[in-house]
Amino acid sequence: MSKKGNTIFFKRPPRILSYAAVCGSKEKEGIIGSYADITLDDDMYGEDTYEKAECKMLSAAISLAVKKSGKREQDIDVLLSGDLLNQIISASFAARDYDFPFLGVYSACSTMSESILLGSALIGGGFADTAVCATGSHFASAERQYRYPLELGCTRPPQSQWTVTGAGGLVLGRADRGIKVVCATMGRVCDYGVTDVNNMGAAMAPAAADTIMRHFKDTDTEPADYDLILTGDLGALGSRIVKDLTWEKGYDISSNHVDCGEIIYKVIESEFQGGSGAGCSATVLNSYILTRMEAGLYKRVLFAATGALLSTVSSGQGESIPCISHAVRLEI
Amino acid sequence: MSKKGNTIFFKRPPRILSYAAVCGSKEKEGIIGSYADITLDDDMYGEDTYEKAECKMLSAAISLAVKKSGKREQDIDVLLSGDLLNQIISASFAARDYDFPFLGVYSACSTMSESILLGSALIGGGFADTAVCATGSHFASAERQYRYPLELGCTRPPQSQWTVTGAGGLVLGRADRGIKVVCATMGRVCDYGVTDVNNMGAAMAPAAADTIMRHFKDTDTEPADYDLILTGDLGALGSRIVKDLTWEKGYDISSNHVDCGEIIYKVIESEFQGGSGAGCSATVLNSYILTRMEAGLYKRVLFAATGALLSTVSSGQGESIPCISHAVRLEI
Repeated sequence: MSKKGNTIFFKRPPRILSYAAVCGSKEKEGIIGSYADITLDDDMYGEDTYEKAECKMLSAAISLAVKKSGKREQDIDVLLSGDLLNQIISASFAARDYDFPFLGVYSACSTMSESILLGSALIGGGFADTAVCATGSHFASAERQYRYPLELGCTRPPQSQWTVTGAGGLVLGRADRGIKVVCATMGRVCDYGVTDVNNMGAAMAPAAADTIMRHFKDTDTEPADYDLILTGDLGALGSRIVKDLTWEKGYDISSNHVDCGEIIYKVIESEFQGGSGAGCSATVLNSYILTRMEAGLYKRVLFAATGALLSTVSSGQGESIPCISHAVRLEI
Repeated sequence: MSKKGNTIFFKRPPRILSYAAVCGSKEKEGIIGSYADITLDDDMYGEDTYEKAECKMLSAAISLAVKKSGKREQDIDVLLSGDLLNQIISASFAARDYDFPFLGVYSACSTMSESILLGSALIGGGFADTAVCATGSHFASAERQYRYPLELGCTRPPQSQWTVTGAGGLVLGRADRGIKVVCATMGRVCDYGVTDVNNMGAAMAPAAADTIMRHFKDTDTEPADYDLILTGDLGALGSRIVKDLTWEKGYDISSNHVDCGEIIYKVIESEFQGGSGAGCSATVLNSYILTRMEAGLYKRVLFAATGALLSTVSSGQGESIPCISHAVRLEI
């Protein structure tokens, strides 16, 4: 049995054979700009709708990751993907262009880590040789679906985050070298009663803290064992909350915790909290982080993407926001 | 390596420890009425919104399946679930009530087989001892989200299907006896260009045919090797199409193919085509079919649930309907 608590272990860890990221015009001004494979000048990406642009970014990330892996498309055993759009249409429509099977997954902005977790399990169990894990988001399609039409010009409260326009993907497989997926912790749904849909960071922080601390316990490790504890898109405020929540339980992650949403833009906290969206952790991981891991700058990274499992209907009916975080440990 | 083509094999097949189904007032008049664990007189299930009623049905199916398995909740390693509502809120909100981890999956009405496939892979790979796989749907929440408000009283075209009000779930695990999940075939996205959102059966039939025929090839079997080839919710018309499509390729499934959507109601084809929705195959499988398998009436069943991966946005933007079918082979 390759599990302890909620953590699964890979005796022969799958490797990240390749990775790719596509990002939008706002995102390329930030930290990932010089690391992403494709940076857009026009966020419409030559398409006539936001949704098609989002799908095209995801397709580009998948195709590019496959190409960089040296594998042919017929060598890919499965694609695991999902996204924020209703019925995960970006992933489904992207998958339509490939001959390999597709397993749709959804955990909002923690889809990147859920897909890596499941892809690694399929490879670790001997059910696949190669798996593509990918996700993305688009600012304009997310605003239209979750909030207001852009044309309305609504102001944004200071606790809000900016949905990242971008997509990232990676190819998992067998190799003698490269970044390993050593183990993964499956997230539980946490709901601390936050109802403010503009404050996702506060809603998601408890789920991130829960998963990170269970990962420490299940693997007998502590914060200092990691070069980086990377959450998905808590933003600046959420990042502070997760540090507090873990500190209260005796884990000091303040010196090595970084949040993808906090670093992707130049954050001015009085204005907004940083990036969010499934594309946030997907682009940061699949460009900046994995490049630096390969360069030896980080040897062991705990990647805990975070997702808010709400919908406009659930919030409209007065529900609070259940959240989740799945974590994967990467080593080189 | 436990795979061939797109099919994965379980050397030590996980067993179905228990199953449970909840169905609505219309559904209990049909074939599953005397097999479902809970049958509702009022489809609101004591809740004040359709969505909450859907979530409550799913929770009931999960809790009942766990109870019938003889396991305690703390023995459950993971819940795999998804549903048709935007951002799979039924599954996410149901998962909130449990302490075990949650992996959200989405492949529309083939979510039941995708969750069994992934749950079996987690158990087969040694990453879990027990997994709950569940999904559901509700006629009224689906109508509101995908079509028209019920209050509008729109007429339905004869090629349309009726979204099933119901939920079903099962517990996979290790045991010496019971129904085995022997192997599973991962679906590919098929899109034959159907754009009529009222004709899901025609849209999904090619995906079902593709997966069923690849299953035959990957496992060196033929239609006569199965007591039942069970599709998800093609309805009466889609069922005829899948028989035609497989017959054209040399596979005659006409004598042992049955569609959950076709049998769940008393279908009058000039009126409508039968049931659909993630709850359709979930309730039929987790009541009528598994009960009859346990009674020895079917020894080998290929369960190929089918999903239409559209959204109102994709259809509104003129897109055709990509479809998928994941198949699992059950034996006793």
